[in-house]
Amino acid sequence: SETKKLLILPGDGIGPEIMREVARIMAWMSRARGISFDITEDLVGGASLAVHGVPIRQEVIDKARAVDAVLFGSVGDPKWASAGFDRRPEIAILKLRQELGLFANLRPAKVFDALAEASTLKPEVVRGLDIMIVRETVGGIYFGNPRGIETLPDGSRRGINTEVYTTPEIERVARVAFDLARKRGNRVCSVEKCNVMESGLLWKEVVTDLHAREYADVELTHMLADNCAMQLVRNPRQFDVIVTGNLFGDLLSDLASMLTGSLGMLPSATLGAVDANGKRPALYEPIHGSAPDIAGKGQANPLAQILSFAMLLRYSFDMHEDAALIETAVANVLASGLRTADIMSPGMAVVGTEVMGEAVVREL
Amino acid sequence: SETKKLLILPGDGIGPEIMREVARIMAWMSRARGISFDITEDLVGGASLAVHGVPIRQEVIDKARAVDAVLFGSVGDPKWASAGFDRRPEIAILKLRQELGLFANLRPAKVFDALAEASTLKPEVVRGLDIMIVRETVGGIYFGNPRGIETLPDGSRRGINTEVYTTPEIERVARVAFDLARKRGNRVCSVEKCNVMESGLLWKEVVTDLHAREYADVELTHMLADNCAMQLVRNPRQFDVIVTGNLFGDLLSDLASMLTGSLGMLPSATLGAVDANGKRPALYEPIHGSAPDIAGKGQANPLAQILSFAMLLRYSFDMHEDAALIETAVANVLASGLRTADIMSPGMAVVGTEVMGEAVVREL
Ligand SMILES: CC(C)[C@H](C(=O)O)[C@@H](O)C(=O)O
Ligand SMILES: CC(C)[C@H](C(=O)O)[C@@H](O)C(=O)O
Repeated sequence: SETKKLLILPGDGIGPEIMREVARIMAWMSRARGISFDITEDLVGGASLAVHGVPIRQEVIDKARAVDAVLFGSVGDPKWASAGFDRRPEIAILKLRQELGLFANLRPAKVFDALAEASTLKPEVVRGLDIMIVRETVGGIYFGNPRGIETLPDGSRRGINTEVYTTPEIERVARVAFDLARKRGNRVCSVEKCNVMESGLLWKEVVTDLHAREYADVELTHMLADNCAMQLVRNPRQFDVIVTGNLFGDLLSDLASMLTGSLGMLPSATLGAVDANGKRPALYEPIHGSAPDIAGKGQANPLAQILSFAMLLRYSFDMHEDAALIETAVANVLASGLRTADIMSPGMAVVGTEVMGEAVVREL
Repeated sequence: SETKKLLILPGDGIGPEIMREVARIMAWMSRARGISFDITEDLVGGASLAVHGVPIRQEVIDKARAVDAVLFGSVGDPKWASAGFDRRPEIAILKLRQELGLFANLRPAKVFDALAEASTLKPEVVRGLDIMIVRETVGGIYFGNPRGIETLPDGSRRGINTEVYTTPEIERVARVAFDLARKRGNRVCSVEKCNVMESGLLWKEVVTDLHAREYADVELTHMLADNCAMQLVRNPRQFDVIVTGNLFGDLLSDLASMLTGSLGMLPSATLGAVDANGKRPALYEPIHGSAPDIAGKGQANPLAQILSFAMLLRYSFDMHEDAALIETAVANVLASGLRTADIMSPGMAVVGTEVMGEAVVREL
């Protein structure tokens, strides 16, 4: 088989140490399954600011474009908290999304059986939860113009951002949601604020039309974003796939993640459009942050990063069997009672980053 | 004492029947405490659309301006669901906010001891919860221009909304939050997305400056909106007062309400600016919707509407004693085991709207 090119961007905080555990999995894949990767590594976020003065270099973006998939750690570093709007570590991820056209962020919120008690919600409300949120990530208010802060003649100031969505932008992300739903529970809930925002009204119309034209076999419902925030708390298992815009998706996917009680377990994928050569740009990252408070201490949970790698195998290389092997190994390690500090509960054994990574390999 | 002028707008669905239970409380106040109100009533929402063809008449807005306080039921009617963007029943509430300058929406999320089990969250996470969310309600993306849907030369369409916040708009709502915090836990958490939106960056700066200038005695923290959605699920009791913009406030206040497990219990107030005569426009409404499915059946929970009236007494007339009397009566009725269907739990007695209203009066 042809070489599989990966760009690895560990980023800040716990990024580098949890990424090392993925390297362990890759080594196993090469040993046991004869699958190897052509890997480049580079700096992003605070780590890049420190060395290059920018959160991400053009060179890194070009590399990301050239590979088959990007495996991302996390960015964010208190050292750069007051560095100004143009030097935020977060720019690294925003630029990668924009420049590679990574428009569909897939955010599974899944409760692992062994961790159902970890949620602040009652176990009977979340047990078996398995939602997929598809969030648009290159449009909406994150990127619309005009934007900025201007000073008015009277000396007061005005901050402006613009939410813009076009028919094709809505259609392509809705398509991702419908396609995913067909492989899952076959239900899509489209979320906006069509009762106050015209961009939401257009969103709803475009999703409805696409559904009627091409996806009538999938069940489609619509929900206002405020109601969706409530329903995720009231009865999260009513959802299969949720599709929504950039800003609502930011809040709702984080909310959904927290329902599981174990952020340290949740991966994500962000996909672009398939190009003329059949190549689809893609970035995979854990949903948790850089956790600067525990960085370098060997305590971080590497499982979300490992599961992000499993998503990479599945979505970028169609290696469903290998992805499933890794996912099962993670579930088994949890069932055996091993826990990192973030998911620790009475009666379990607390282990560090490396022991957890080794346990997954042993299980494989 | 001078006459207290109220405009009562029952609206749609269960609005009229729960408002009748407030009338019962008013009758008691006149009998037992010699306090009476000068009341006008009118139509809004679907009820107004049906008779007048518009969700709210200018005449009703003028009346709302003339009175001391507006007591609002709820709007929303499936009959008008496809009536078009300009004839949504919701326009009634949006117009009242805009035209009366009702810029600060106070949304308490409080767990009643007797109902702690009703939440989908574990009782130990929510027991004693008492958050106040202060949401800006006349600015932000709800009202900014340009807005609309336009057709592009290639036939595709584009939906646009604009988020705008100015220094004075941010300051006045932050002031409401700081003032409230001083009478509560003395802590304010300001919420925005300053890492991706300049309007959020300005928000954070203005709140920080105001705090340093006038409210240094109050503890101020800042939080990103996505993180706030998570923290409300992870550990909601960490919050005292949250202040945020219109759109984030819409989602976060509904999310916070659902943590209590009993939407049928939660009131709200929306306040404007004190004018030259010392008068402050104000509107009070339950946070639940019009619940068309149970409308007219006498099953609706009147307590949020009754508690909205208590808020009206407190915020518009400084009648703290009377407000507290009503609030205690409601808590006692719950403690005695009476429940409407929405908050029913095993071992309690299910009652209808009228019996619940009567029970509160008896308790008074
Ligand atoms: C880091 C930040 C810019 C980003 C966002 O707001 O999109 C993050 O919260 C996310 O959800 O990936
Ligand atoms: C009815 C609707 C326009 C309104 C809003 O979105 O503000 C409602 O959800 C609210 O929170 O009061």
